[in-house]
Amino acid sequence: MYPFVKAFTNPQGSPIRELFKYLSKPGMISFSGGSPASDLFDVDGLAKAARSAFENKEACLQYGATGGSTALRRHVIDLMEKRGVRVDESELLITTGSQQGLDLVVRILIEPSDIVYIDEPAYPATVQAFRLAGATMVPMPSDERGLNIDALEEQLESGDVRPRPKLIYTVPTFANPTGATISRERRLRLLEIARRYEILLVEDDPYSELRFSGEEIPTMLSLSEEVSGSREWVVHLSSLSKIVAPGLRVGWTVGPAEIVRRCVIAKQTADLCSPPWTQEIAASYMRDEDLGGYVQQVSAVYGAKCRAMCEALRSELGDRIEFGQPEGGLFVWARFKGNVDTARLLTKAIEQNVIFVPGAAFYAKPQVSSALRLSYATASIDEIQEGVRRLARALAILKEQ
Amino acid sequence: MYPFVKAFTNPQGSPIRELFKYLSKPGMISFSGGSPASDLFDVDGLAKAARSAFENKEACLQYGATGGSTALRRHVIDLMEKRGVRVDESELLITTGSQQGLDLVVRILIEPSDIVYIDEPAYPATVQAFRLAGATMVPMPSDERGLNIDALEEQLESGDVRPRPKLIYTVPTFANPTGATISRERRLRLLEIARRYEILLVEDDPYSELRFSGEEIPTMLSLSEEVSGSREWVVHLSSLSKIVAPGLRVGWTVGPAEIVRRCVIAKQTADLCSPPWTQEIAASYMRDEDLGGYVQQVSAVYGAKCRAMCEALRSELGDRIEFGQPEGGLFVWARFKGNVDTARLLTKAIEQNVIFVPGAAFYAKPQVSSALRLSYATASIDEIQEGVRRLARALAILKEQ
Repeated sequence: MYPFVKAFTNPQGSPIRELFKYLSKPGMISFSGGSPASDLFDVDGLAKAARSAFENKEACLQYGATGGSTALRRHVIDLMEKRGVRVDESELLITTGSQQGLDLVVRILIEPSDIVYIDEPAYPATVQAFRLAGATMVPMPSDERGLNIDALEEQLESGDVRPRPKLIYTVPTFANPTGATISRERRLRLLEIARRYEILLVEDDPYSELRFSGEEIPTMLSLSEEVSGSREWVVHLSSLSKIVAPGLRVGWTVGPAEIVRRCVIAKQTADLCSPPWTQEIAASYMRDEDLGGYVQQVSAVYGAKCRAMCEALRSELGDRIEFGQPEGGLFVWARFKGNVDTARLLTKAIEQNVIFVPGAAFYAKPQVSSALRLSYATASIDEIQEGVRRLARALAILKEQ
Repeated sequence: MYPFVKAFTNPQGSPIRELFKYLSKPGMISFSGGSPASDLFDVDGLAKAARSAFENKEACLQYGATGGSTALRRHVIDLMEKRGVRVDESELLITTGSQQGLDLVVRILIEPSDIVYIDEPAYPATVQAFRLAGATMVPMPSDERGLNIDALEEQLESGDVRPRPKLIYTVPTFANPTGATISRERRLRLLEIARRYEILLVEDDPYSELRFSGEEIPTMLSLSEEVSGSREWVVHLSSLSKIVAPGLRVGWTVGPAEIVRRCVIAKQTADLCSPPWTQEIAASYMRDEDLGGYVQQVSAVYGAKCRAMCEALRSELGDRIEFGQPEGGLFVWARFKGNVDTARLLTKAIEQNVIFVPGAAFYAKPQVSSALRLSYATASIDEIQEGVRRLARALAILKEQ
């Protein structure tokens, strides 16, 4: 009856957010969200930051600049420098979480039927953003070591088949959902490809600081310094959500000034500015607290939880399941052997009081998947062990039917 | 070089936000912003609300529901009930300021070359939102009493000339920039038209509680109860920005469930959720403080400032200027007699250390305007008097040239 645009005639909501309603079920153990662990929040530091921020009442309470609070911008630039990259003021925009950064990039670049290359499987909110913009999503080829650059280049060279993509979207470090990380050598080649074909590379980087094993690999943005001319083809999205607290909704976009300037204009109509109050709190926190030290502690806890989950999966499910052991981030991506539809398994799992996200949620095209994403972030180690036992029970029940 | 979509190839930023850079000039008196007065913020109440909200740490720090915090939603529903309208949970969405409400409505409804009807002159960020969406904006006919419903109906009846609009956008109470208010009788007729022609009526209502004289007129949303079947054609946007503090960035959208459900899905990709922390602060504030009493106090101050500005305009500019005396809100919309280009006047005014927004900023089509928008909200009464003297001086200098 209402004249909705085509994408909104019969839209589907986020498959992950649909699961939120089960979280309040008594006794539920959740492996489903992408949330960091609430019990790890630096509550004292954040309470102090909140008090300190409110000393500058007007900055907290009045409208702010669309590009972000002056204080927060300075601390983000410092943080990026610690991560190995110098960011000019004109290259930075503060956003309401990194999700808004992606949304703004999509607004200024994507028209219906434009091609975008994405990881497969990929983060559902990214898939949704591209879908609602009417983009045609082309999954990038991958092998056991992640993104396959040779195959990607072949795909780009066969340009007579389809137009070149407007952008390439990837979570190169501890990807959501797979936990996979692109090697340094492949990153350099990907940057070279972006430069040569003049395709924007959107690097979504919420997790890279949550490393608990293996060797650090610089972000694509940092590495772009090593591939002459490539930096102007990199848009980098980052966030405090996983390393401080999602409730701040503080993210940022770093990109070429020409792109950032347009994102700022798009943001003016989107929400005028992100809440100055939470930006000031974030700025005070980054100024006064030891963010690096905190992130190390938190990562160590996630590492222990990850090991507990992998061990439990091995001991409870043995050779019925396969997965790679992550070196950081929040997720184990696992796949059942044989014919297991994890969407059907989920209904059994909910009866057993454990939830996860079925693999199908991470694909642009509807499909049956035997994979599942398990977050080890929010459950305790005991809960992780019990949750995996419940998962094994749910599998047994499903197989009996 | 980058493949921007057409609307972002060479976009213009907000004409009002462009003026922000002059605000820091020493001695500048600003009549330019749409900000409420910082010195009227209920700092103690908000500090208390912040402390109280943080008692529920997890609600502040973790991700929240896309539709908004449970506590805040309840208090908004109560507030709307005080304003004379019952809102069901399915009809409500919390947004990052009311600007995001408009943006989401545009996303789900507007495609390039769709027709929308808007006030003329209109709020620039609305014009920009429609422009970036590629909409064709048709100004609504008006007379000395505001929106002319007979002429509007005629325009709709001549449907052979152009397709009917997808929506009608209006700020019916203390409009930005004109300060005008649509009468009760015209509101009822407008609701009847929305119902009969099945056109969504988007009521943007940030100012209606800031009344300091004249008689209260219910919102279109409230009045829709009196026009059977019209409520399903009303989308109502509101906000705490002008009545508590913009730094919270708390707004809300009330509309038919079918529309709100789609706005929620659009918001999932826009920013997942507005910051839970500021939502919890807003909820605590609405629970513990006397918002109604505070708004009355603030409105009385704005009333005094408005009278001071109108008197100063009369005494300093006499019959060189004409304007209506507002009954509420933040703005005086004035027009110079004779040939005054207020965009040119602005450069002289900046030299005299006073700024305002030139009338041209409020029109979808580029034009020379002899009108200007003067906000009396943030300057003191002394500053208002001095600022108007400076304005008169700037006018004299402009005329000498």
